[in-house]
Amino acid sequence: MLRPDPIRTGDAGPDTCTNCSRHGTARCCQARTLGDDRDVGQRIYDLAAELYPICRSITGNGVRYTLGILGRHIDIDVTEVPSGTQVFDWTIPREWTIADAYIANAAGERVVDFRASNLHVLNYSAPVRAQLPLEQLKEHIFTLPDQPDLVPYRTSYYAERWGFCMSDNALAALPPGDYTAVIDSKLAEGNLTYGEHVVPGDAEDEVLLLAHICHPSLANDNCSGLALLTMLARELGRRPRRHTYRFVFAPGTIGAITWLARNEAGTVRIKHGLVVSCVGDGGGPTYKKSRRGDALIDRAMAHVLKHAAPSAVIEDFSPYGYDERQYCSPGFNLPVGSFQRSKYGTFPEYHTSADNLDFIAPEHLEQSYRLIVAAIEILENDRTLIGTNTKCEPALGRRGLYATVGGDKAVAQDNMAMLWVLNFSDGTSSLLDIAERSAMPFAVIDAAAVRLEQAGLLGAP
Amino acid sequence: MLRPDPIRTGDAGPDTCTNCSRHGTARCCQARTLGDDRDVGQRIYDLAAELYPICRSITGNGVRYTLGILGRHIDIDVTEVPSGTQVFDWTIPREWTIADAYIANAAGERVVDFRASNLHVLNYSAPVRAQLPLEQLKEHIFTLPDQPDLVPYRTSYYAERWGFCMSDNALAALPPGDYTAVIDSKLAEGNLTYGEHVVPGDAEDEVLLLAHICHPSLANDNCSGLALLTMLARELGRRPRRHTYRFVFAPGTIGAITWLARNEAGTVRIKHGLVVSCVGDGGGPTYKKSRRGDALIDRAMAHVLKHAAPSAVIEDFSPYGYDERQYCSPGFNLPVGSFQRSKYGTFPEYHTSADNLDFIAPEHLEQSYRLIVAAIEILENDRTLIGTNTKCEPALGRRGLYATVGGDKAVAQDNMAMLWVLNFSDGTSSLLDIAERSAMPFAVIDAAAVRLEQAGLLGAP
Amino acid sequence: MLRPDPIRTGDAGPDTCTNCSRHGTARCCQARTLGDDRDVGQRIYDLAAELYPICRSITGNGVRYTLGILGRHIDIDVTEVPSGTQVFDWTIPREWTIADAYIANAAGERVVDFRASNLHVLNYSAPVRAQLPLEQLKEHIFTLPDQPDLVPYRTSYYAERWGFCMSDNALAALPPGDYTAVIDSKLAEGNLTYGEHVVPGDAEDEVLLLAHICHPSLANDNCSGLALLTMLARELGRRPRRHTYRFVFAPGTIGAITWLARNEAGTVRIKHGLVVSCVGDGGGPTYKKSRRGDALIDRAMAHVLKHAAPSAVIEDFSPYGYDERQYCSPGFNLPVGSFQRSKYGTFPEYHTSADNLDFIAPEHLEQSYRLIVAAIEILENDRTLIGTNTKCEPALGRRGLYATVGGDKAVAQDNMAMLWVLNFSDGTSSLLDIAERSAMPFAVIDAAAVRLEQAGLLGAP
Repeated sequence: MLRPDPIRTGDAGPDTCTNCSRHGTARCCQARTLGDDRDVGQRIYDLAAELYPICRSITGNGVRYTLGILGRHIDIDVTEVPSGTQVFDWTIPREWTIADAYIANAAGERVVDFRASNLHVLNYSAPVRAQLPLEQLKEHIFTLPDQPDLVPYRTSYYAERWGFCMSDNALAALPPGDYTAVIDSKLAEGNLTYGEHVVPGDAEDEVLLLAHICHPSLANDNCSGLALLTMLARELGRRPRRHTYRFVFAPGTIGAITWLARNEAGTVRIKHGLVVSCVGDGGGPTYKKSRRGDALIDRAMAHVLKHAAPSAVIEDFSPYGYDERQYCSPGFNLPVGSFQRSKYGTFPEYHTSADNLDFIAPEHLEQSYRLIVAAIEILENDRTLIGTNTKCEPALGRRGLYATVGGDKAVAQDNMAMLWVLNFSDGTSSLLDIAERSAMPFAVIDAAAVRLEQAGLLGAP
Repeated sequence: MLRPDPIRTGDAGPDTCTNCSRHGTARCCQARTLGDDRDVGQRIYDLAAELYPICRSITGNGVRYTLGILGRHIDIDVTEVPSGTQVFDWTIPREWTIADAYIANAAGERVVDFRASNLHVLNYSAPVRAQLPLEQLKEHIFTLPDQPDLVPYRTSYYAERWGFCMSDNALAALPPGDYTAVIDSKLAEGNLTYGEHVVPGDAEDEVLLLAHICHPSLANDNCSGLALLTMLARELGRRPRRHTYRFVFAPGTIGAITWLARNEAGTVRIKHGLVVSCVGDGGGPTYKKSRRGDALIDRAMAHVLKHAAPSAVIEDFSPYGYDERQYCSPGFNLPVGSFQRSKYGTFPEYHTSADNLDFIAPEHLEQSYRLIVAAIEILENDRTLIGTNTKCEPALGRRGLYATVGGDKAVAQDNMAMLWVLNFSDGTSSLLDIAERSAMPFAVIDAAAVRLEQAGLLGAP
Repeated sequence: MLRPDPIRTGDAGPDTCTNCSRHGTARCCQARTLGDDRDVGQRIYDLAAELYPICRSITGNGVRYTLGILGRHIDIDVTEVPSGTQVFDWTIPREWTIADAYIANAAGERVVDFRASNLHVLNYSAPVRAQLPLEQLKEHIFTLPDQPDLVPYRTSYYAERWGFCMSDNALAALPPGDYTAVIDSKLAEGNLTYGEHVVPGDAEDEVLLLAHICHPSLANDNCSGLALLTMLARELGRRPRRHTYRFVFAPGTIGAITWLARNEAGTVRIKHGLVVSCVGDGGGPTYKKSRRGDALIDRAMAHVLKHAAPSAVIEDFSPYGYDERQYCSPGFNLPVGSFQRSKYGTFPEYHTSADNLDFIAPEHLEQSYRLIVAAIEILENDRTLIGTNTKCEPALGRRGLYATVGGDKAVAQDNMAMLWVLNFSDGTSSLLDIAERSAMPFAVIDAAAVRLEQAGLLGAP
């Protein structure tokens, strides 16, 4: 097992919160504010940039190199599964190794070169070493006629095939004649590789956070997701937490299927999950609900996006996309949603050479990070309380919780939040229910609940 | 009983479908395409044109003549119910016979003539033979002051009355003076007549298809409906089918009540039903749901209209309209909806002489026909399946069901349809449920399901 | 107990309605029309104008004077609850008496004078008699910088404090120097006062009608509500009625809490309730639903407002506003909604000196009155019936209930209403259900039901 040099984060201490005494740690309430994390967007960007040049595929060293880099920030547990292993309806494919690939003209000049961009080779391409005329070579070349400057990203995992990808303009500029096509790759028995990181919590209930690790030099899809989850894992390790957080960095589809096949029994612990990809561009944000549609993660993400980003799009589940396809297959039907900025397939840069480091930006990465953290705060803090005075309102003014001069039409949001929490904390509505009903941010409702708990006006049902 | 010269259609053969083996006939899959029926709009139009001149009413020979013409295309079983028979709260009225009707001026010239249009006589009018001044005659004349060129259609079934209908302009042109009013009609003991045609299916479950047969020379209302259902009955007779289809051609209100009174016990077999009228104009299409509102016919028609006609209107049930009023009375509450183009009462030609053969057109009749056929295909083919691989997606590429080059953002609709069917075929969602959820046409979802069944990836729950 | 000179209204007689025989009184059907009440808007206005000058607070003689005036129109039962009494989480505060209040300049001229408007004194202000410079005085002065011509209404019930309210312009015009501040008030042991009026009905089921009585010279908020309910109580006393109507005129918050604390057992009889305030301006109308959201009062008010006032606003419950806050606290959760014209806090005159007698008008008061009466008619007359002929429509024409000439596209609303009532009176839908489903006014549906009952076509389930 590959064990890169991890930076281990300290465990959360077991002390009692001096403020709200909820989570059994000294930093509970303080940890609610995120102000200590101001440069997180840049740090995610820098990590994504470090991952960008690596040529990843569904198997092979690209995944291992990537996990090695993530492992400098968080402890990564790497699993290798041999080629030929049966995982549900699928078989682990051979391991792909690639050293070089190019098309050379008669003068021996490289007109397409893997060293310039790993997108130039059909991902998982079989080896080839052949001389052939342009017309015949074209059968092995993928371009984007509608985006003639861009190189497409193409794969051929499940049919053995060799090929190149290039811009349509570059292809058009090639004079007729014979060319030499070389792909110095190997498809051989080996392993499929994935990595995991666990942040243990007070409970065994797990929150699953997932990013696919199989795409080569595409910055948004998914260097951005891998980097964001790595920084999130670090941060969660520093905070008190109720849930256990499991991060899985696995190849798309086959990696997710492999993980599920090897961890089927453990899926009963998964209470919430999120597939994270394409989180660095300026579009969206987009949340696609789990197949269940009413899971807490669905409600939490929808709530956060509604308040934080009015342009946000909340979509119902559909069975195409990223690995929510597997986690939400009917035999699992896990509460796993999908978070992105621009939705896959809808932006022109998608799966092209334009999905590069200019396409993602620290501020978008930071907003994505903060939206996910806000949803996690709901997963952590949503709870159902009951008022100690349910017949008429309690006298808030006497307790210093309410303005003593009346009649003003401007009632502070904090006062309104307390009234909402008091009225609907009847043992059936959770704080998120109340936040939704009042159209107030969860954080405001939660803060009002903490004040009322401290005043003895709210308790467990 | 009147037995016109029927063209009997052959029974569907009992062989097994060579393709999908679903329906136990050789033509199952082939029958899904409608390409063999290209001139159906013109054939419906021609039949409607043949029915148009007949003077129909709720009783009398007009209904018999009409059934005779339909009987040249399909086998019609005619029922005669004597005047005075009690049917629920109603009594079968006397039979109406009319030979001639006119208003003549002092010179003996016919200024209103039943021979020119049967709309000129108040439908079901009592006989009269009288000479009277214009002012007194006017009490017996119906016009449309807001549409002064048109002759209205008016009836007086349940109060004995004589009268004429004419255009307001023609009435205004009549000089004062004495006129002779002659209506050579007879109201006498006789029968109420209705016709039925049954296309037996594999199951006794019945689909009821209804058109009222009591309106005189009104092309859309309802020569169009009578002609469409006749051609549909022919076509269904040629196809494999699960359900039994019962066509009823009966006078409005009293005919429907009579049929229900005589067939009350059999209504338990009625699983779906549709009242068809005004299907030849260019408006709508309009579907009014059954009183239940969530019957399969309601969902099927709404689905078909949504995809085929973006201008379509789906309405909730209301207790006014055609014979859905009786079939959806609370004591029956049958799953019977109503299909039209323009909705009754909303188009200026409604119940006037402008509802003539120029108002209907083969292309509208054809679209109406195809929409109804598409809904029937849902009634026939909707089913609930379960995947054989519910834990993660099955490997479609290995089975040749999926493109082997990945990464392209344009995913074929057929691939998407397979993913939808696989993900939601968990034994609780029918194909129509999946079609609605995916916003894909039922036919596309159904075709994907057939492919997956053939590949062994889907089966009965 | 204060017993002002009441005008007692006669009890409804026990005779049988000569028309519909529903309510066991001779005036049942006649009472459905409100035409005998044409000047009600002016009468409500005049009463509100009489109440306007009184300086009310949550305790003290202002409430008693007000109840005395109301008592000239209806019999008022007055309750006095001693200071210091515990009511749920609250304690009845001291009684406030005020004789005079002013700020005088060095010349002894009153620059702020309680005799000009009782808004000038901070409501429930502690006494003061002090000479102090302007800058120091300003700490006790409330103004509205954004509405510099208006005097705000401010209170300080639960923190002992003295103060004045004045226009920002008037404050700006005060020259520096010493001023004399005099508030000749008293806060002493005494009572909290509220009044009730009961209109007994055939049943013990109660409809609670509530108006707060604690605001000083604010015409809309709530002289209008007090006056409207008083006139409504008179009118209900004259009509036959199924329900018992209880009117409560109590100080806001503490008065409602006191009433609930003293009448907790009786709340089981409360089937419907309405808080009435700000009913005289030209905005809205606004109905805020009870916490339950689906109470009959919620549906009745929403139905009435939808038909009578297209600009009406129907809001979900929120825990801020008037005394619905207490009646809808989770421990009671009574079916009590809130009716207003412009919503509290949303109009510029709210809680300012601009909420004067020019701000309210007889026509708005009358419309408010009629909307509430229409909702009460639904509470009184909503019922679930069942047709005697549920299989097919009954023959309405034979019974003279339907036009005998058919074919006309304009079907009278009354005919449509009968069809709706017949089709949906299957023992599960009430008349209000049918009115909502048909989008017809309840009164039209109810009248159709009465006709059908009289014809023997509808009866109790």
